[in-house]
Amino acid sequence: MRSWIEGADGSGYGAAHLPYGVVTHAGGHPELAVRIGHHALSLARLQDEGLLDGVVPHGVAVFGNGTLDALLALGPHAWRDVRARLQHLVTDEDHADMVRAALLPLDEVTTSLAWTVADYVDFYSSEHHATNVGRIFRPDGDALTPNWKHLPIGYHGRSGTVVVSGTEVVRPCGQRKGPQDEAPSFGPSRRLDVEVEVGFVVGTPSALGSRVPTGALTDHVFGVVLLDDWSARDIQAWEYVPLGPFLGKSFATSVSAWVTPLEALSAARTRPPVQDPAPLPYLVDDDPWSLDLALELELERGGRSAVVSRPPFATTYWTPGQQLAHLTANGAALRTGDLFASGTVSGPSLEERGSFLELSWGGREPLDVAGIGEVAFLDDGDVVTIRGTARGVDGEPLRLGEVRGRVTPARD
Amino acid sequence: MRSWIEGADGSGYGAAHLPYGVVTHAGGHPELAVRIGHHALSLARLQDEGLLDGVVPHGVAVFGNGTLDALLALGPHAWRDVRARLQHLVTDEDHADMVRAALLPLDEVTTSLAWTVADYVDFYSSEHHATNVGRIFRPDGDALTPNWKHLPIGYHGRSGTVVVSGTEVVRPCGQRKGPQDEAPSFGPSRRLDVEVEVGFVVGTPSALGSRVPTGALTDHVFGVVLLDDWSARDIQAWEYVPLGPFLGKSFATSVSAWVTPLEALSAARTRPPVQDPAPLPYLVDDDPWSLDLALELELERGGRSAVVSRPPFATTYWTPGQQLAHLTANGAALRTGDLFASGTVSGPSLEERGSFLELSWGGREPLDVAGIGEVAFLDDGDVVTIRGTARGVDGEPLRLGEVRGRVTPARD
Repeated sequence: MRSWIEGADGSGYGAAHLPYGVVTHAGGHPELAVRIGHHALSLARLQDEGLLDGVVPHGVAVFGNGTLDALLALGPHAWRDVRARLQHLVTDEDHADMVRAALLPLDEVTTSLAWTVADYVDFYSSEHHATNVGRIFRPDGDALTPNWKHLPIGYHGRSGTVVVSGTEVVRPCGQRKGPQDEAPSFGPSRRLDVEVEVGFVVGTPSALGSRVPTGALTDHVFGVVLLDDWSARDIQAWEYVPLGPFLGKSFATSVSAWVTPLEALSAARTRPPVQDPAPLPYLVDDDPWSLDLALELELERGGRSAVVSRPPFATTYWTPGQQLAHLTANGAALRTGDLFASGTVSGPSLEERGSFLELSWGGREPLDVAGIGEVAFLDDGDVVTIRGTARGVDGEPLRLGEVRGRVTPARD
Repeated sequence: MRSWIEGADGSGYGAAHLPYGVVTHAGGHPELAVRIGHHALSLARLQDEGLLDGVVPHGVAVFGNGTLDALLALGPHAWRDVRARLQHLVTDEDHADMVRAALLPLDEVTTSLAWTVADYVDFYSSEHHATNVGRIFRPDGDALTPNWKHLPIGYHGRSGTVVVSGTEVVRPCGQRKGPQDEAPSFGPSRRLDVEVEVGFVVGTPSALGSRVPTGALTDHVFGVVLLDDWSARDIQAWEYVPLGPFLGKSFATSVSAWVTPLEALSAARTRPPVQDPAPLPYLVDDDPWSLDLALELELERGGRSAVVSRPPFATTYWTPGQQLAHLTANGAALRTGDLFASGTVSGPSLEERGSFLELSWGGREPLDVAGIGEVAFLDDGDVVTIRGTARGVDGEPLRLGEVRGRVTPARD
């Protein structure tokens, strides 16, 4: 699928991708846009030119609000229609002059969070990750808890601290108590970490008291973001029994500025791992699929950068469809803007682990990173970037929007 | 403080109380109101009469939106000014005719959720409750986990399923696995329960990366609701290790329709229990206070009703000020509309336990309720009501808005 817009083809952001984001140009208002090559294509400006006429129901304000929220709420038919219109505009030169007037160079815009996050749920769906964590924290026990292979374990995170890629992350303070410490102390986290995750953005809501079946993912989920679940391991370790992670996670969760429509990933579908034991009927999917996303975790320290890990999303045990079915199995309602994430993605090998906790085996075996040296956890000034690629619908690779954050020193 | 409005004095909803809610009258639009006696006093209608002129900054839409959200965002000076004006209007007869025109009989209105819940955090701050739960689930271990007396344990709940009092609660389905079961099964919860809690509604936000000190509660918290944290004990027991409660709680959390301003509770302040060991400095409050709220839990079954418990909120170990300081200790931002709750309130005696889990000691010692019979957990058709009273600023008792819900059968 070729675009007449220069720099689009082969960039990972061609006509077959078109992820959505919100950009601000030259001190103006935030504008809903899609990314194409090295430009943001403003939907507000296309609408002003009349190029989006008739694509959504008349009288519904969708493109001029500076957020993806209204489009999310319209549901899968509208998502498909808008995408088809945009693909037409960037591939067919009929209206090239008007479309060109709506293009904003990426280096002239800033990005902001593309949608209003309603509830944020974080799962724990990678078997390799859960096994690693179990071995690190409970070396003498079973690596996986008894429930792990029966249900996708998850918990609610703080939606108010979901931030867009590029937002600096202040090193959190909190209570820590090591096994050798007599009492807890309060101060900056000494074990700041990241988790490489994939997030799913819900568009279509569901009614309180009803369930969403495993096969209905595409009816409800609009698209995909990369997600960095920043984690303070020392705070988390002391607080999390018995009610789970709280302040060890709630200081920041970064998501990519660009939301890739699920439709753009239809050629990236893949069979998930075999599940044994067979899950209960409400978690069975007649035609189960996951996504073949190649992820990478890059660390930048002292002016040098290196990819430290390449987690393969396709190895995740529980599928997104199962996660959504489980999340609503008790009748919990979905709202437009809900975000649910996979949990840390780790593959079977060391080079595929999606957190420094695992890469440095709890800090006991620091990673030797070429050009950087020994790395256990994050230092102030470190910059972490998560990237991802997938096969696009035209067979060309597409690049998921990256998520990036710099660690700044604790305050006080 | 006497009101000229009939039925106000002595009702628990006099001029010294004035809790806020949102009501709909005769198929109209939702209207922001305060409760006075047996009426809702519509702020939209008072504004139309010019009776609220000058009380909030010009040009800010606060009273006509059908929600408390805008007033929450204005902060404590505006909260005080609006409350003072309303108290003047209901105690001074100067504008009685115009005020009377804004009164809506409560039996002619329906209530809805008064504000948009941003993030919802549930604490675990009652020592008696945590001790009971520890003894029930871990009879051979320590009742309290090692961290319990060092920090107010909490976790994030699902804000999208916070519902207003009166909303029916569908019995949730989910995975359960008893100790004797070979494998988990899926179906309606067999151990449906409630938790008697007090919720705090945040108005003033805080910046990401900053902390709110223990003494700043009244700068940020607008008011108080009663809260019923519906809990499916069997689902919770199987899912909660290691990441905490999820589907066992996320199907519904009910809050009262009326939000009592914190200012109306200034005479209900009381010294909290002594804390030993002394908490870390960030949790120390030079002038610590809690609230003396007398709560009650009523069960209605088969046409009969009985108060089964009277939990005393003043016995809660961690104060609301400490909860807020802990919640933000890692720099997590507050947003207007955030809700944080105390966790189940239980006093030292059996008659003061705030959940059926505790009242029936895990179901093993069903409660014999006069007129109802043996009660372990909730049946379909049961109605649960939580009420609360406190000393008002004029010395008269005020009644917190009740929270009530009927259990309906599981679907499918």
